[in-house]
Amino acid sequence: MRAVRYAGADGAARLGRLEDDTIVDAGPAPAVGFDASPEAWELVAGASGDRVAAAAARLLHPCVPRKLIGIGLNYRDHAEESELDIPEVPVLFAKWPSAMIGAGETIVVPREETRPDYEAEVAVVIGRRTYRADADAARAAVGGISAMNDVSGRRAQLETPLRQFTLGKSFDTFAPMGPCVASADGVDLAAIDVKATVSGEELQSSNTRNLIFSIVELIQYASAGMTLEPGDVIATGTPGGVGDSRTPPRYLRDGDVVDVWVDGVGTLRNPVAFEP
Amino acid sequence: MRAVRYAGADGAARLGRLEDDTIVDAGPAPAVGFDASPEAWELVAGASGDRVAAAAARLLHPCVPRKLIGIGLNYRDHAEESELDIPEVPVLFAKWPSAMIGAGETIVVPREETRPDYEAEVAVVIGRRTYRADADAARAAVGGISAMNDVSGRRAQLETPLRQFTLGKSFDTFAPMGPCVASADGVDLAAIDVKATVSGEELQSSNTRNLIFSIVELIQYASAGMTLEPGDVIATGTPGGVGDSRTPPRYLRDGDVVDVWVDGVGTLRNPVAFEP
Repeated sequence: MRAVRYAGADGAARLGRLEDDTIVDAGPAPAVGFDASPEAWELVAGASGDRVAAAAARLLHPCVPRKLIGIGLNYRDHAEESELDIPEVPVLFAKWPSAMIGAGETIVVPREETRPDYEAEVAVVIGRRTYRADADAARAAVGGISAMNDVSGRRAQLETPLRQFTLGKSFDTFAPMGPCVASADGVDLAAIDVKATVSGEELQSSNTRNLIFSIVELIQYASAGMTLEPGDVIATGTPGGVGDSRTPPRYLRDGDVVDVWVDGVGTLRNPVAFEP
Repeated sequence: MRAVRYAGADGAARLGRLEDDTIVDAGPAPAVGFDASPEAWELVAGASGDRVAAAAARLLHPCVPRKLIGIGLNYRDHAEESELDIPEVPVLFAKWPSAMIGAGETIVVPREETRPDYEAEVAVVIGRRTYRADADAARAAVGGISAMNDVSGRRAQLETPLRQFTLGKSFDTFAPMGPCVASADGVDLAAIDVKATVSGEELQSSNTRNLIFSIVELIQYASAGMTLEPGDVIATGTPGGVGDSRTPPRYLRDGDVVDVWVDGVGTLRNPVAFEP
């Protein structure tokens, strides 16, 4: 099953069930968006409202999380291309949720950012409140899977003193997520394909079997001392092939179109425009 | 004028106006808490409900922000005691809002954290949506002033690879804020006293005139590329005197009581307990 959040005729956010190319309306979305809790899945499963062509709908980022957790250097080939050590513990950082946009919305590169980059990632949506999860509880806390483009302003990311990542990864529109949240029921979390294609050229391709810290390990680590709540999102890290590490670098350009594809979720497509 | 969020008799969050030692009830709090917008101030100004002794009320963190923005190394004496360079641009980092607690609630140090520390800070609450603020717009965006204890787990903060601060600063309960939001009308933002007292011993004392980047400059910088929204909170940095830089270090201990005092706001007092 796949859940979406989308704009109704009056612009207000609604939830729906995505069936092939059709959205079946599930009513007004709550302020937390689709939080991947059992209750939220039940609501979407029972949707029987109007049917809308997905291509005609304006999709919104499905979740409205309190915590949007990024993971740095979680694929060996990306750590190597970044010329950084393989981490011994997960590199948690924050993206501010005000950066989130949905599939189809435009990534707007602000004037300050000279090195805008793409990062294709498998996103995990927490569906159950969890603290100090063991492996079983961590698996049970996964409420769904989505795709995220962890858009990164390398200038801001690397020029902030002490190299704190958050600002460069949180400019408005720098956190596209979607198009949907797919149920994690029966999904092997260690076997999910992820790809990035920029203006037709495939630049990243990997699978969560290559994660240094698995999805279950990330949830165990993050929940040790910090409660994870339904709707919280973990972007699990990006594989090798980012623009900043290419020769010559391949930064995002005005007019580019970035596709992040995650198996079972679909394609998160966002055009790129430079702020005037 | 001073606004609070507090728990009503049924436990649900309410807003109120703080008058000396009394809360005048302003009705149920919205999900965003007190967001320091002109409308929120108007609501609190017009409060005429039940009167509750503040000492008997359970105070909650007044704001429920989407962005809780921390600033690193923003007082020269703190940068020096940390043996780090004076920053050339503001060191923005994130605290996850799930760490927030109110005045009187307990700071619980998780088992993982061996070096828990206090940081007294003046917190600024954004009251107007703002993007690319100039100096006048930045000043106008300040909706109120509060106190924050930017509790920091130095082990997690410094052991995370690439020294990303967020996890160590976001363990549950590591973001006490309150007791109230004070109106910023007529307040000289460059002349606010701030102090930390731990179990009766004054360990930090400074004034926002000593900030490397002023409150107005922080808002200008943060809003360049990133929209600030009502209720967003900026913890503006801590002065010298943190526990980690003392000889010997003075980390938080089980049973400590930490007071962060900000002129015009009052005392944010939180006891400390170690997780069993």
